[in-house]
Amino acid sequence: ALAALPAQAADSPVIKWRMASSFPKSLDTIYGAAELLSRRVSALTNGKFEIRVFAGGELVPGLQVLDAVQNGTVECGHSASYYYVGKNMAFAFDCALPFGLTARQQNAWMYSGGGIALMRDFFKGYNIIQFPGGNTGTQMGGWFRHEIRSLADLKGLKMRIPGLGGKIMARLGAVPQTLAGADIYPALERGALDAAEWVGPYDDEKLGFYKIAKNYYYPGWWEGGPQLSFMVNLQKWNALPEQYRQAFEVAAVEANMAMLARYDTVNAPALMRLVQNGVKLHAFPKDVMLAARAAAFALYDEESARNPAFRTIYSEWKKFRDSEIQWFKVAEAPYENFLYYMK
Amino acid sequence: ALAALPAQAADSPVIKWRMASSFPKSLDTIYGAAELLSRRVSALTNGKFEIRVFAGGELVPGLQVLDAVQNGTVECGHSASYYYVGKNMAFAFDCALPFGLTARQQNAWMYSGGGIALMRDFFKGYNIIQFPGGNTGTQMGGWFRHEIRSLADLKGLKMRIPGLGGKIMARLGAVPQTLAGADIYPALERGALDAAEWVGPYDDEKLGFYKIAKNYYYPGWWEGGPQLSFMVNLQKWNALPEQYRQAFEVAAVEANMAMLARYDTVNAPALMRLVQNGVKLHAFPKDVMLAARAAAFALYDEESARNPAFRTIYSEWKKFRDSEIQWFKVAEAPYENFLYYMK
Repeated sequence: ALAALPAQAADSPVIKWRMASSFPKSLDTIYGAAELLSRRVSALTNGKFEIRVFAGGELVPGLQVLDAVQNGTVECGHSASYYYVGKNMAFAFDCALPFGLTARQQNAWMYSGGGIALMRDFFKGYNIIQFPGGNTGTQMGGWFRHEIRSLADLKGLKMRIPGLGGKIMARLGAVPQTLAGADIYPALERGALDAAEWVGPYDDEKLGFYKIAKNYYYPGWWEGGPQLSFMVNLQKWNALPEQYRQAFEVAAVEANMAMLARYDTVNAPALMRLVQNGVKLHAFPKDVMLAARAAAFALYDEESARNPAFRTIYSEWKKFRDSEIQWFKVAEAPYENFLYYMK
Repeated sequence: ALAALPAQAADSPVIKWRMASSFPKSLDTIYGAAELLSRRVSALTNGKFEIRVFAGGELVPGLQVLDAVQNGTVECGHSASYYYVGKNMAFAFDCALPFGLTARQQNAWMYSGGGIALMRDFFKGYNIIQFPGGNTGTQMGGWFRHEIRSLADLKGLKMRIPGLGGKIMARLGAVPQTLAGADIYPALERGALDAAEWVGPYDDEKLGFYKIAKNYYYPGWWEGGPQLSFMVNLQKWNALPEQYRQAFEVAAVEANMAMLARYDTVNAPALMRLVQNGVKLHAFPKDVMLAARAAAFALYDEESARNPAFRTIYSEWKKFRDSEIQWFKVAEAPYENFLYYMK
């Protein structure tokens, strides 16, 4: 029996952390990434580093996870950095900007293109170190009660679309609204909303929007590859044994990969079920796309002029994005376009 | 001084493995993934599980890594499973099939769509457990001395293209050749080859093909998202402590992610340099693409008829692929196409 009890190594203390997720358990693909990290970290440390995950609202409201990590209310969190653009628009680079990077390009920027170092410099000001922690891939553009035939149809349209996407929709004439997931369906039903975006087929199907608004638009140009993030309080991070830091870091990479892999797997059959239920798929009209892109880059220029943190990151991010486009348009996109469209 | 020496845990033995890579160190992005895994595994185990990586040819020839792992000559390897299609064409599913999955779809299939379990059943017959271990993304279609204007121009064309891509090129009238990387340049130079494919801009640039054959074609339809793999001898794997298995498994996920991130980062500027050096980019003509796709799926049907292992995996893989196409064509591809092509 003695041999089965490993000696307690001096540098392997028992550590228990709490992770506040911004998300409800019903968003199982997103929420599940935090649980995957927790399980893997535990297994890598023989159960000595234990991270308990709490759903949005259990410890702190979903949109206050960053604050709770910053002030040490919890040791770590799992959130979407663009929830915090009200503090500083530069948080968006850690998640998504309209007409920004795809999931693959976001990973390339973060892990290999200097993005993670740039963003850590910025997060340091919030007493946090962050790690890419999942991606949904390109989201859908949402559910519309009526067809959108041109830019003019956005005028006065009441749409649930938070964040920078909402800011740009406002510039196009729409009236953006911010509602929590559970409130969207009733608002659509009673006509308080004309349209609503959520995530993609797998998550949207569960909330039942297709029963009211049959027109399902693509692509979600405001979220071409939105990244979720794990955020850790800097003092707590620095106090961790090196082996535990390694475990957290590598488990975060796995969670990042696993979330995208799962979305890419479950969205496909969900989309097919929606279409079988009478959902009509539409591309956004070209004038909407062009006007939205112009409004987005005008917004980035304005923000760069007044926000030094944004400007510093934006100039690097933009160079990376433009370079990626030159490569992806040559190899990846023509391959995919042949697979998807060529008869 | 005593406190700095952690007690040796009973379940943390010192283990030293050798990993035979199929690749030369000059393919630094691919070779580097094995070194990344080695470093991470060591850090996760306080240096107790040490994996030393050897370049192709140092311990065993690059194309015999699978055999060396199978018979226990080395504990593990890093290779491309499609090197072994001569043993069984089903190995290709662990890497790439012409007109097959993109990098993201390969990850989705492996980690979430049942692919890894299917492939492990198959690898068990070779006394091996395998892990996805990197991806290049869609490769380029290679370097051609003369322009290819239609399918007829492939007739008699001597092209360096191994594996299934070569089999299909042969069905289109070309004369495929198998040459190691270092032998391609001289063969092109003396006219023994009319064309050669290698990887993509970053790796191709180093071998200097652009100095001889200026026409650079895309996409590499035979390698839309080729996966590299870590292969471990089953007895050695089963003898590992659970914590070490966890470390290997999660480090492999990271290496898989990191290789793609790095290729996506370094290919873009390499392509720009090549173009500045006078390289002419061309898409393969549509009749070449259509004929190649038809030949590829005819090959898969023939192989399914005679090879039960291939048939079992192919039917699942094909279902997954067709489903993915229905989803990616709706969200991801229209988003990317707008970014890349829309003025």
